[in-house]
Amino acid sequence: MRSAFYISDGTAITAEVFGHALLSLFTVEFNHVTVPFVETEEHAHEVLQKISESFQDSGERPLVFYTIVNTEVRNVIAKSVGINYNFLDQFVAPLEKVLGVPSKPEKHRTHSIHEKTYDIRIDAVNYALANDDGSNLKDYNEADIILVGVSRSGKTPTSLYLALQYGIKAANYPFTEEDMGDILKMPPVLRRFKHKLFGLTIKPERLHQIRSERRANSRYASLQQCRMELREVENLYRKEKIPFLNSTQFSIEEMAAKIIATTGLQRRKWA
Amino acid sequence: MRSAFYISDGTAITAEVFGHALLSLFTVEFNHVTVPFVETEEHAHEVLQKISESFQDSGERPLVFYTIVNTEVRNVIAKSVGINYNFLDQFVAPLEKVLGVPSKPEKHRTHSIHEKTYDIRIDAVNYALANDDGSNLKDYNEADIILVGVSRSGKTPTSLYLALQYGIKAANYPFTEEDMGDILKMPPVLRRFKHKLFGLTIKPERLHQIRSERRANSRYASLQQCRMELREVENLYRKEKIPFLNSTQFSIEEMAAKIIATTGLQRRKWA
Repeated sequence: MRSAFYISDGTAITAEVFGHALLSLFTVEFNHVTVPFVETEEHAHEVLQKISESFQDSGERPLVFYTIVNTEVRNVIAKSVGINYNFLDQFVAPLEKVLGVPSKPEKHRTHSIHEKTYDIRIDAVNYALANDDGSNLKDYNEADIILVGVSRSGKTPTSLYLALQYGIKAANYPFTEEDMGDILKMPPVLRRFKHKLFGLTIKPERLHQIRSERRANSRYASLQQCRMELREVENLYRKEKIPFLNSTQFSIEEMAAKIIATTGLQRRKWA
Repeated sequence: MRSAFYISDGTAITAEVFGHALLSLFTVEFNHVTVPFVETEEHAHEVLQKISESFQDSGERPLVFYTIVNTEVRNVIAKSVGINYNFLDQFVAPLEKVLGVPSKPEKHRTHSIHEKTYDIRIDAVNYALANDDGSNLKDYNEADIILVGVSRSGKTPTSLYLALQYGIKAANYPFTEEDMGDILKMPPVLRRFKHKLFGLTIKPERLHQIRSERRANSRYASLQQCRMELREVENLYRKEKIPFLNSTQFSIEEMAAKIIATTGLQRRKWA
């Protein structure tokens, strides 16, 4: 199988994301190899060796996606026997012209602790954890958004993703049996934060499947119970005009992007 | 201020990562605008309007980074008054030649629920949450890695990042006062999982600062206590030959990349 190498003097996340997006346009399987923190010529020569070995083993020239700030190190990788994609480079000169200033490449400017919003993102992760699953009802005034929904409808991973990637403080609150009663009413603790609420829902069949993995053959997991709970929350969302999304067909990356688009929240990534 | 638009018929994460990496080479400030899920020509025309308005307001042509699978929608964005970067496109034809097969662009192939490893990543997030902070000692046989370290040395966010991005099941265990005693010994519960342990440490001054934000003027946060705890864990790491990293200067993205590089764990992202 042909290899795809992702190489950088940083985390190599940019190379991975770019290479993965490009390769996803093809229905071909690859052996993916990420090599981060290639910061010396010596290390670069070791990587060259790996690329050569992969070529010899597979008989197919590896694809090599790389971004490296240091010129000497970059020049070593550029000599690989693979098909080399220094994919940012060709955009730099035209962009210098547009912006009217020279580029100033520096190591570790992306995905590092030196990003301006790094601390904001870590604070948001700690906030999401401390305010997960209705575990803390005191700090909702700090929340940027409060995800609501029944148990296992995707609130927790979505909250964490919003925090980790975008520095958005997302609490989440599960509607419980207690809230349900005969008819689900807005829990009093949420009433004054109504403008921050965002509802999740999910197909009953999918919820039944997810809950069954947790507690097979329980009332909690029964299709009937799932149907009832989802009907109640969707009625509440409509009645109270809470924006909501059905998570059944969406990844957490897609949920986060849709929630941000719907609410107009700001990404605190590149502020 | 000049705007940078990130536009896609999916999450726009690829456009964001690429654009951000390119712009990070310049010491220029931008107004960042992400527009995901542009799936119709009508929506694309609305986006064109936004790009025009941004040009009029700032007097500077916006930069427009986009990846769009649908030809009609893409052709609308390509007419924007901005400086347009259809940054994947120019790599496609040469890559078709290399691979000897035509590309088959389909929507939502990246960052969607249809990625082969999506469920693995969500399972790993649930595992990380259930095994956070030593809260569960029964499931360590399932762990790919167990992060150990003193309270607030970066275990939790690093575990979550490993899970969310790479589908790696990372538990984490905090060394506590109880484990410390006169001299920190390997907690019995960890002994049989020694090959899975990975230690975190941090500068005492930084730990003191982080803990002080939590509990100011406590013994827990005192520089003396931080120094003592870190000396003990570092001694244990050396004595037991547990690989370890100092998190003081690293982002969680960097920590994750370094941990994977050190341990040889596999990224379950594109399997």
